[in-house]
Amino acid sequence: MTIERIPVGSDSTVWIGRGLLGDAAKYLHSPSGRFVLFSAANAGAAADAVRHALAGRLFVDETVDDREESKTLATVGRLADAALMGGLRRDDAVVAVGGGVTSDVVGFAAAILLRGVAWNAVPTTTGAMADAAIGGKTGVDHAAGKNLIGAFHPPRAILIDPAAAALLPERDYRAGLVEALKAAWIGDAILAQAAESGLDAILARDEGTLLACLAGAVRVKAGIVSSDLREGDRRRLLNFGHTLGHAIEAAGGFRDLKHGEAVAWGIAAALEISKRRSGLPAAEAERVRRVLARLGPFPPANRDPAVLSPFLARDKKATARGIAGVVLEAVGRARVEEAVPEREWLEAAAIMSLS
Amino acid sequence: MTIERIPVGSDSTVWIGRGLLGDAAKYLHSPSGRFVLFSAANAGAAADAVRHALAGRLFVDETVDDREESKTLATVGRLADAALMGGLRRDDAVVAVGGGVTSDVVGFAAAILLRGVAWNAVPTTTGAMADAAIGGKTGVDHAAGKNLIGAFHPPRAILIDPAAAALLPERDYRAGLVEALKAAWIGDAILAQAAESGLDAILARDEGTLLACLAGAVRVKAGIVSSDLREGDRRRLLNFGHTLGHAIEAAGGFRDLKHGEAVAWGIAAALEISKRRSGLPAAEAERVRRVLARLGPFPPANRDPAVLSPFLARDKKATARGIAGVVLEAVGRARVEEAVPEREWLEAAAIMSLS
Repeated sequence: MTIERIPVGSDSTVWIGRGLLGDAAKYLHSPSGRFVLFSAANAGAAADAVRHALAGRLFVDETVDDREESKTLATVGRLADAALMGGLRRDDAVVAVGGGVTSDVVGFAAAILLRGVAWNAVPTTTGAMADAAIGGKTGVDHAAGKNLIGAFHPPRAILIDPAAAALLPERDYRAGLVEALKAAWIGDAILAQAAESGLDAILARDEGTLLACLAGAVRVKAGIVSSDLREGDRRRLLNFGHTLGHAIEAAGGFRDLKHGEAVAWGIAAALEISKRRSGLPAAEAERVRRVLARLGPFPPANRDPAVLSPFLARDKKATARGIAGVVLEAVGRARVEEAVPEREWLEAAAIMSLS
Repeated sequence: MTIERIPVGSDSTVWIGRGLLGDAAKYLHSPSGRFVLFSAANAGAAADAVRHALAGRLFVDETVDDREESKTLATVGRLADAALMGGLRRDDAVVAVGGGVTSDVVGFAAAILLRGVAWNAVPTTTGAMADAAIGGKTGVDHAAGKNLIGAFHPPRAILIDPAAAALLPERDYRAGLVEALKAAWIGDAILAQAAESGLDAILARDEGTLLACLAGAVRVKAGIVSSDLREGDRRRLLNFGHTLGHAIEAAGGFRDLKHGEAVAWGIAAALEISKRRSGLPAAEAERVRRVLARLGPFPPANRDPAVLSPFLARDKKATARGIAGVVLEAVGRARVEEAVPEREWLEAAAIMSLS
């Protein structure tokens, strides 16, 4: 069994490898040796592996409602109740087992319990393995928008075992891969090439090929985050596909499209803008588009300017001159465009294609 | 008008002086120039001064329920609603006007809104002026105990104008002074002497004498906090009087005694322990006790071992060997005693006196 160790900044370590969860006790961190387990209801096998590994050291074991609509301050309050009533002390640690919603909510609870206790993330979806928790953004949604309440609180350890994604529904499995490929496209041309070649094996759920793709994506994200721990310029590259993607996700009421699916559409639009603004060769844009198409078919995106415009205007990156976005110069190399006029985003939405 | 500037760590500045609030716009910090105002209902005059100073730059103006029983995650949620529905952006700032509960709750809301926005504290009670917000501890209570949910999030600016305490009810005014004197006793013998000499003037609400006492207390606390931004050894000195004080406060259901009153009893007990353990001369203990007595009379403390014991056992500083406490070696010099047996705390509670 080969376990790879990828540091993120100075506080956080990603451990990644097949069979890792069988040996989870070695990698999960708690100053006191005691743990609180919060796991998504559908993360049963991974949660059981953690339970087994931490036998006798778990003093709270609760499930988390991991639907996007439960990603609220009230849910964080319920987790806090369970941990505090269970006798949480400052040197205890929390373990989150589940997808992106679980790590967002549980990580935020860890951030504010006793003004911050250590936590560990065990992602069980392809999207969470490639993206969530690395970098320490935690938080919940608010009626005014997604992720508007939260904290920076990096997990001490992130344990990625591709076996945890084995039972994932097909649609979730594929949507999550968009985030892994995104990392390759913005930061690692060789990884992008390898993921493209291995895509059939990944879609056939070959664990070794999936592992190589995820490890590459984690290395890209860890490299960016380590050089830019808050919200500086390099970190903004991770938003590739997310400007229009967020608007499309919101236009679907966060129900019609999964996050990764909306990001796929957002990337398709960003490719159009990249051809015009950053000289992305048409052949490279087409190559990226074809890879995304192989992950689909995805539900259609709302392209109506009247619907998308208010969501674009509400973007955190919006200014009077336009909305910042990430463009590709080539596969493996991205940059931030500070002010792309709204009109240009809406035109790209009109012509983007994933077929 | 003389305004003193006292830095706290590298992120936070205390501004203190008479008439300061008339010129508040000069000292309140917001990257965007825009502000959210959250003020306690009974902090009317100070809130009005801030409103006047920030005319045209306030886009949210809400009152905060500042009773201890409202210091909850639900209250933070309501403040977050008001700020986000008002259009809060990352570069906006929050201003908290009120006592310790207000700064605890509002500071915590600022800590988690958009993963942290800048905030400013305008304390309006003697206790909050001497103690709260300096050091960046923010948070709310939980059924399992006080301040169990929160964050470290130092305010950018703390504006202390003694005039803001002018209309404070007598009991609050006196209870809050306990925290100011505590700072002198643990860290500044000359300040302790001056506060003792000036106590009649302070109790007669002479603003100049109160200002000198508060400024001295802030300097002690800022010095300790700057050298120890998290919860290290020096910072623990600020807990003088708080070990038994917290137990007494809890035994009174947080209703019978105000925080400062419970701390006064806690100091009275700590003096008894200091005589035995750290060689505090009986004459110095008596001197401190007499100053506390002049702030009273305070409501009686519950001294019942059967009542106090469970609260002592629940102390965050409790270990198998005893409960850490702060003792005086002399007026102006304190140290931490790591493990004082519970029996010793209960004996001190039995003999402590404030008359």
